[in-house]
Amino acid sequence: MGGDFGPHCIVPACISCLVEHPSLHLVLVGQSELVESLIARHPGVDRARLRVEHADEIIGMNDQPALALRSKPDSSMRVGLELVRDGAVQACVSAGNSGALMALSRYVLKTLPGIDRPAMVAAVPTQSGFCHLLDLGANVDCSAEHLYQFAVMGSVTAEVLGTARPRVALLNVGTEDIKGSQQVKLAAGLLQQANGLNYIGFVEGDGLYRGEADVVVCDGFVGNVLLKSSEGLAVMIAGRIEALFRSSLAARMVGVLALPLLRRLRGELSPAQHNGASLVGLQGIVVKSHGGAGPEGFKSAIRRALLEIEEDLPRRLQSRLAEHLL
Amino acid sequence: MGGDFGPHCIVPACISCLVEHPSLHLVLVGQSELVESLIARHPGVDRARLRVEHADEIIGMNDQPALALRSKPDSSMRVGLELVRDGAVQACVSAGNSGALMALSRYVLKTLPGIDRPAMVAAVPTQSGFCHLLDLGANVDCSAEHLYQFAVMGSVTAEVLGTARPRVALLNVGTEDIKGSQQVKLAAGLLQQANGLNYIGFVEGDGLYRGEADVVVCDGFVGNVLLKSSEGLAVMIAGRIEALFRSSLAARMVGVLALPLLRRLRGELSPAQHNGASLVGLQGIVVKSHGGAGPEGFKSAIRRALLEIEEDLPRRLQSRLAEHLL
Repeated sequence: MGGDFGPHCIVPACISCLVEHPSLHLVLVGQSELVESLIARHPGVDRARLRVEHADEIIGMNDQPALALRSKPDSSMRVGLELVRDGAVQACVSAGNSGALMALSRYVLKTLPGIDRPAMVAAVPTQSGFCHLLDLGANVDCSAEHLYQFAVMGSVTAEVLGTARPRVALLNVGTEDIKGSQQVKLAAGLLQQANGLNYIGFVEGDGLYRGEADVVVCDGFVGNVLLKSSEGLAVMIAGRIEALFRSSLAARMVGVLALPLLRRLRGELSPAQHNGASLVGLQGIVVKSHGGAGPEGFKSAIRRALLEIEEDLPRRLQSRLAEHLL
Repeated sequence: MGGDFGPHCIVPACISCLVEHPSLHLVLVGQSELVESLIARHPGVDRARLRVEHADEIIGMNDQPALALRSKPDSSMRVGLELVRDGAVQACVSAGNSGALMALSRYVLKTLPGIDRPAMVAAVPTQSGFCHLLDLGANVDCSAEHLYQFAVMGSVTAEVLGTARPRVALLNVGTEDIKGSQQVKLAAGLLQQANGLNYIGFVEGDGLYRGEADVVVCDGFVGNVLLKSSEGLAVMIAGRIEALFRSSLAARMVGVLALPLLRRLRGELSPAQHNGASLVGLQGIVVKSHGGAGPEGFKSAIRRALLEIEEDLPRRLQSRLAEHLL
């Protein structure tokens, strides 16, 4: 029920995913009448692999997490997470309120042993591929130990998603040892002593986009600002390019040829479109789709959940955490 | 002597500025033999308005601020700041080591009454113009009172630089009151009570680029990450666009027409190119040019210093601070 477009985006995305992945089964949790009416628009759906689970309440995009937790026991988000907890499904994908999803996930699924707080991690495109950035807004005040746990979780997630011996860096305002906030300097000390992690030191904001690390660790405040400002800048640049090609007759003529090419880039370049942020550190798989994503974006979030199921991310995280945690 | 290109960039920039601004006088501080040899390449320079002041030592781009302060009494940076302190010049412009410039400025010039720490502020391009962002890396651990002081300094700076009744916002991870770190929430409380400031609340990273505020306040860690990651993303996007127009013969043909137009955008779009960050809160005018800026960039930093001299920024800041500070 979540996201800017709700089931109007999610239902067609799910139906398209069922066609692409013959072994996929989906449960759509939400107001069943609306969901069924949207499914009915697509004849030929394999209903043996698509079930609707009714949930009456909806968590609004601006509801406070505490409220979502206390006063909406029958929200689609909560019912979906309970299906994960009870083993009825293997992952939950939501386009809803991030804060509520984090709070409910932690409450319903619990964190892995040794993890204080789950983190949100997403792939950000870089000059040489992409890097896994965490935390993305769930945890605004972080201790050095939290940053250390994020680094371990990010490293294992990157490995599981296909990067051998991922280079792990702390995001900082300089690359020299003396730079940075107290927490970052303390976290660096912890990471230097960690065995089995490929910790490469500090990376700056521009180094992240140059592809200097595979995993970049920061607190949720910094990560959220970085991700949202990058989205905002990418949108602004796209807008300026369009305006440039409207600025004169000659420019318009070039634009007719150039803009279709440039629009192809837009999807790749906006970090938000690399859709699907994982909540890691939980006893279960939860993927957050960007609230503004369309059906293609939501499909990419489902694919991320599928990959994490195939790779059994939570179990692998748990065994690796046991080696690394303090 | 500072920046990636040292006097090889700065000397031609200065000579060009002298031509453009007939009332401008410049003192070039550094190794006089090298500087004179570079000036000699430009015949017809009005030497009555261009003086060279010898300073033997150079602060390296990676020197620690404390070292620069203690062991290099004759650095070009320090001698330049002492000229400001002694009233021999009205502003100092440097492309050198930011941390050293901040530490030396504070030591040589002192802060204005009531200001604990100077801040670095720069204009960042947005969808509707630009916003003044501070702090940009000087102060990594900030209290709510520091953020409040930055807000006051940013507001006065924006006013002086031409924005009537600037909209002042705190950078945060959400726009609701309950969002954010402890310091940000406390700073919001202080700003809500401030008379005479046009405080509009929280802004997110994407809102900054949408132009939702004229002054955006954050701690130096967050500001530095935002600025550097934006620079990195802008460079990456420019690189991808160039690659796109090399990707096929047809694309190359379109590129011949489109790239010259797009390159014009590059300057405007990279936040670093809007060159010239001011150190505010000092008893004197200090402008930091981006280390990687070329002669055009350095000229833009000189122009910013000229504007601050004309508007008498430090004196106006001091009188406005007296009204606003707690």
